[in-house]
Amino acid sequence: MPSNPPIAIVMGSQSDWATMRHAADTLDQLDIEYEARIVSAHRTPDRMYEFAKSAEDLGFKTIIAGAGGAAHLPGMVAALTHLPVFGVPVQSKALSGKDSLYSIVQMPAGIPVGTLAIGQAGATNAALLAAAVVALFDEDAREALIAYRKARTEAVTEFPKDE
Amino acid sequence: MPSNPPIAIVMGSQSDWATMRHAADTLDQLDIEYEARIVSAHRTPDRMYEFAKSAEDLGFKTIIAGAGGAAHLPGMVAALTHLPVFGVPVQSKALSGKDSLYSIVQMPAGIPVGTLAIGQAGATNAALLAAAVVALFDEDAREALIAYRKARTEAVTEFPKDE
Amino acid sequence: MPSNPPIAIVMGSQSDWATMRHAADTLDQLDIEYEARIVSAHRTPDRMYEFAKSAEDLGFKTIIAGAGGAAHLPGMVAALTHLPVFGVPVQSKALSGKDSLYSIVQMPAGIPVGTLAIGQAGATNAALLAAAVVALFDEDAREALIAYRKARTEAVTEFPKDE
Amino acid sequence: MPSNPPIAIVMGSQSDWATMRHAADTLDQLDIEYEARIVSAHRTPDRMYEFAKSAEDLGFKTIIAGAGGAAHLPGMVAALTHLPVFGVPVQSKALSGKDSLYSIVQMPAGIPVGTLAIGQAGATNAALLAAAVVALFDEDAREALIAYRKARTEAVTEFPKDE
Amino acid sequence: MPSNPPIAIVMGSQSDWATMRHAADTLDQLDIEYEARIVSAHRTPDRMYEFAKSAEDLGFKTIIAGAGGAAHLPGMVAALTHLPVFGVPVQSKALSGKDSLYSIVQMPAGIPVGTLAIGQAGATNAALLAAAVVALFDEDAREALIAYRKARTEAVTEFPKDE
Amino acid sequence: MPSNPPIAIVMGSQSDWATMRHAADTLDQLDIEYEARIVSAHRTPDRMYEFAKSAEDLGFKTIIAGAGGAAHLPGMVAALTHLPVFGVPVQSKALSGKDSLYSIVQMPAGIPVGTLAIGQAGATNAALLAAAVVALFDEDAREALIAYRKARTEAVTEFPKDE
Amino acid sequence: MPSNPPIAIVMGSQSDWATMRHAADTLDQLDIEYEARIVSAHRTPDRMYEFAKSAEDLGFKTIIAGAGGAAHLPGMVAALTHLPVFGVPVQSKALSGKDSLYSIVQMPAGIPVGTLAIGQAGATNAALLAAAVVALFDEDAREALIAYRKARTEAVTEFPKDE
Amino acid sequence: MPSNPPIAIVMGSQSDWATMRHAADTLDQLDIEYEARIVSAHRTPDRMYEFAKSAEDLGFKTIIAGAGGAAHLPGMVAALTHLPVFGVPVQSKALSGKDSLYSIVQMPAGIPVGTLAIGQAGATNAALLAAAVVALFDEDAREALIAYRKARTEAVTEFPKDE
Repeated sequence: MPSNPPIAIVMGSQSDWATMRHAADTLDQLDIEYEARIVSAHRTPDRMYEFAKSAEDLGFKTIIAGAGGAAHLPGMVAALTHLPVFGVPVQSKALSGKDSLYSIVQMPAGIPVGTLAIGQAGATNAALLAAAVVALFDEDAREALIAYRKARTEAVTEFPKDE
Repeated sequence: MPSNPPIAIVMGSQSDWATMRHAADTLDQLDIEYEARIVSAHRTPDRMYEFAKSAEDLGFKTIIAGAGGAAHLPGMVAALTHLPVFGVPVQSKALSGKDSLYSIVQMPAGIPVGTLAIGQAGATNAALLAAAVVALFDEDAREALIAYRKARTEAVTEFPKDE
Repeated sequence: MPSNPPIAIVMGSQSDWATMRHAADTLDQLDIEYEARIVSAHRTPDRMYEFAKSAEDLGFKTIIAGAGGAAHLPGMVAALTHLPVFGVPVQSKALSGKDSLYSIVQMPAGIPVGTLAIGQAGATNAALLAAAVVALFDEDAREALIAYRKARTEAVTEFPKDE
Repeated sequence: MPSNPPIAIVMGSQSDWATMRHAADTLDQLDIEYEARIVSAHRTPDRMYEFAKSAEDLGFKTIIAGAGGAAHLPGMVAALTHLPVFGVPVQSKALSGKDSLYSIVQMPAGIPVGTLAIGQAGATNAALLAAAVVALFDEDAREALIAYRKARTEAVTEFPKDE
Repeated sequence: MPSNPPIAIVMGSQSDWATMRHAADTLDQLDIEYEARIVSAHRTPDRMYEFAKSAEDLGFKTIIAGAGGAAHLPGMVAALTHLPVFGVPVQSKALSGKDSLYSIVQMPAGIPVGTLAIGQAGATNAALLAAAVVALFDEDAREALIAYRKARTEAVTEFPKDE
Repeated sequence: MPSNPPIAIVMGSQSDWATMRHAADTLDQLDIEYEARIVSAHRTPDRMYEFAKSAEDLGFKTIIAGAGGAAHLPGMVAALTHLPVFGVPVQSKALSGKDSLYSIVQMPAGIPVGTLAIGQAGATNAALLAAAVVALFDEDAREALIAYRKARTEAVTEFPKDE
Repeated sequence: MPSNPPIAIVMGSQSDWATMRHAADTLDQLDIEYEARIVSAHRTPDRMYEFAKSAEDLGFKTIIAGAGGAAHLPGMVAALTHLPVFGVPVQSKALSGKDSLYSIVQMPAGIPVGTLAIGQAGATNAALLAAAVVALFDEDAREALIAYRKARTEAVTEFPKDE
Repeated sequence: MPSNPPIAIVMGSQSDWATMRHAADTLDQLDIEYEARIVSAHRTPDRMYEFAKSAEDLGFKTIIAGAGGAAHLPGMVAALTHLPVFGVPVQSKALSGKDSLYSIVQMPAGIPVGTLAIGQAGATNAALLAAAVVALFDEDAREALIAYRKARTEAVTEFPKDE
């Protein structure tokens, strides 16, 4: 395996970072390396093509792609690589991310995108799912993932508290 | 202007032709030439890139693109050309084309797709809208369009009939 | 071509201007002239009829129409002119513009409205789509459009930034 | 009051008659006269204007308007008359009449359309609502309406039957 | 006609008044009398029964009923009277009034409720629709309605203004 | 406790029986008695009032109410009794039962309806939920319920079979 | 009956308490005891299994379960107990609780969850429904419930007040 | 690595097999082994627990889980294993799989399910996504996947054909 990070996080615009940083934060907590880049399917289609086509050669193992509205980035990246692609529907303004969700999850047979929940929870979970994939062949990642989830289980209190 | 047809009709798969042929039929009625091609954003992304990037040089004036589900074709074509692009949401099975509609119409600022109705009516109307664009600089198209609409107006009967 | 502006921007009420000014601003950036008017299908149907029926004679080449809720303006204008009409669904209060979108995009076969995204992005894109139409026969518009999109592509940074 | 029928039933196309005849049938049962006409907002806007503007002078007391998809007929008729207008959303193919419903019911403040249920039940109820309006000043209609509803109440059996 | 007001405005709770007062304000502007009452289908079913069953005898000519969520008031009132009933879907919290709309508009064949738009616009329009009904036999109401709509038409400015 | 059956099944019309008989069938399988009646909130409001107000005195312990469209029966029954009421949204034609669901489940604070799934599964489950309530004080019902669920668990095969 | 409280209130996380405390408050008003616990189907599946499987033995008579998003808690608890389970869809961020509602109410035939309205009203009503169940065999609860509802009926004023 | 198959396909009921066999068929085409089992979260919760908790020890590398309606299986399996879980929303009757989709994709932060499209396309794509994961450490799977996708690309014809 090359020294390149195993996970790429790509997003359609700077404004998506408010959501997608939760993927990055989660990977930071798991001590799994990643590279985060802005790759717009619509405004920088050439950059997107080049990125997706070279992702495997660059040593990436899985790609997290976030986008909102008519969110074409995850599906287009998936069309251009054989790596597993996980999509995060960024919450949009008028339709609250329902458009993002449909645009990402309803891929035709042949080109899969594993889609997570709308918004921040989805970004966090994309990181955990990518980590679960990496954990299949990286024992450090596996142990970090198990520890992460154990800590979260233990953080659940028994009784609700007034606040 | 080359002798190439002014309008391209592209669609994501052979199965979309059942819908998109209504665009072709309408252009036939208007005596406006077109070329119909299968260009899948997901299964043939390279063909799609090549088509969209060369469309203007090939003499096309406007592009009609139809797709269903996570319908990325219209938006990706629009990202790769300066020509006007009109999108037709093909009716999908589970979500009845609502996914197709959202995936096409909710484009981010910067890359427009003029979207028509879901299904057959949308395909017909994409042809009429493309014809209206061509009619701005082609008097034959303009006259054909006016005649077409006049005929349809006259075909509306005064009273409903039991059938 | 007469000295009249090639593009008309019409909207159902003063309150739609908050959305539709993004169409006007975009045309300003492209140095394409336009006329913006309030033409309510419901409160001023006569003004609407007169406007739509005379639009072609007045030298307009394409019409951008924005409205919200039961948004009838774009479709009714399209019923009364042969010019290309582009519709902008203004975001409504209770249904977030889903009503506006359906009322504009689901036109029956025969009368097309090229529909853009709900809200501000849709208004911007209506201007870009109208500009793409004008660019087919106006080299200045074409160059402005190409420059506009190139600038936007170049404005996309490589990496997301914390803010 | 002239001898003209008190109720007009208008619809956007011949295909709407399959739905709207239930309005006509209901008025037949109530022995209330009506006139049924095809008046397309989109294909025959001039006929629609003329009809709506003259409806009051023609002696109509209330108007039932049915349309599907981007259903503009009820709202446009309401914009052109002071008579009460009742709208019937015809069930559409892709969106099952949700588009028709939103296009009719979400009218802006100032121009009301009293909207009934999607499809056949809505057509029946538009007739009953129009009859209830007529019944305010026509004792025959009032008695017919009361008898109609009484008969329906009595037709409700006590226990469900296997079929 | 008795001296009782021709229009009753009923609503499910005090909190609906924020919406329904727009019906009252509109009737005030038209100088048409009304009585506004809280009549909850769920919390005061007996009061609701009594009101609806006696409404015609009390001299009311038409009833405006507003409610939110599982909004049963308009339909239940309509089930208990032969007067025309107009329903206003009050905007609910989680579902933005879509639940209110469906609960009011989707009445089964036999019991009509003329439904207006969700929220404030719907309340205003319920008043205008009720006024249009009253105007059929009350010349003062008819003139007030015509003046009201004329004033609104004239208030539409020609050009949008920056604010 | 009288010898009356503990469970009442009410529905808005004969056509709802196709759905609601699944509740009856399930109670038959559990050997729990019930009475099934047609009680339309809209067409027989008086019968509905009388039924709901006397249900407790008649010895019913819980009420299953099914209705479709603007489904007011479950909520109105709940407004008129202190017994637990379980609602079944019957699948409607245009909106597939989404209207039925919203009309039943979105009850305001104060009047609960425990709502089950749309259609046949909901009817079956209403019976099981009513049985679970009865099982709290009727050991026969409890044992029947446990046996019923055990049988269903055991009926789940290990591997899927081609058919 | 053991001295254990008859009602358990469980929820997926501390953040659900803002909603579910309305269930607790309502039971407090009715003087019916309950135990409130955090039991996450996803983060503490073992705790959830143990709780649900032992609930009946612990003396609980009915279970109120609240959760948001892909809300699996109510259905999973229902799969593991024979007690009546009432589900409260907590309002989610992107989809406003529509996801919570569908995840709770659309249970397959065999495992019922009596579902209440989205959010605070649903939590209040889950308490009232659970109380109605308890009231079937606990006269104190029955009287408290009747008093509670009577007080609410009497609190409905006759006329709306400006505020 | 043990000789056990790397992929498990689980589903809630025999009726889901009509959808999920498309996952099996796709893995057959890729020559990747799998085991298909019925594991109902609701009817066989114990079997589900046992399966999910032991899946990693049994040598599975990734799990495909399909379910419809209130589809809890994918999320519950994901809560009980550290393996990557991919969910397939089976198309439901009343809500066409929208309920299945929301129940699977809207998982809270902490427990990811990579969700595919509703129905048959989703099942096929779940297999392809699982294969892409396996391909990260299994060169045969990688080559099969590349060949599969190449064949599909080449199967796209240039021009649509009338049928």
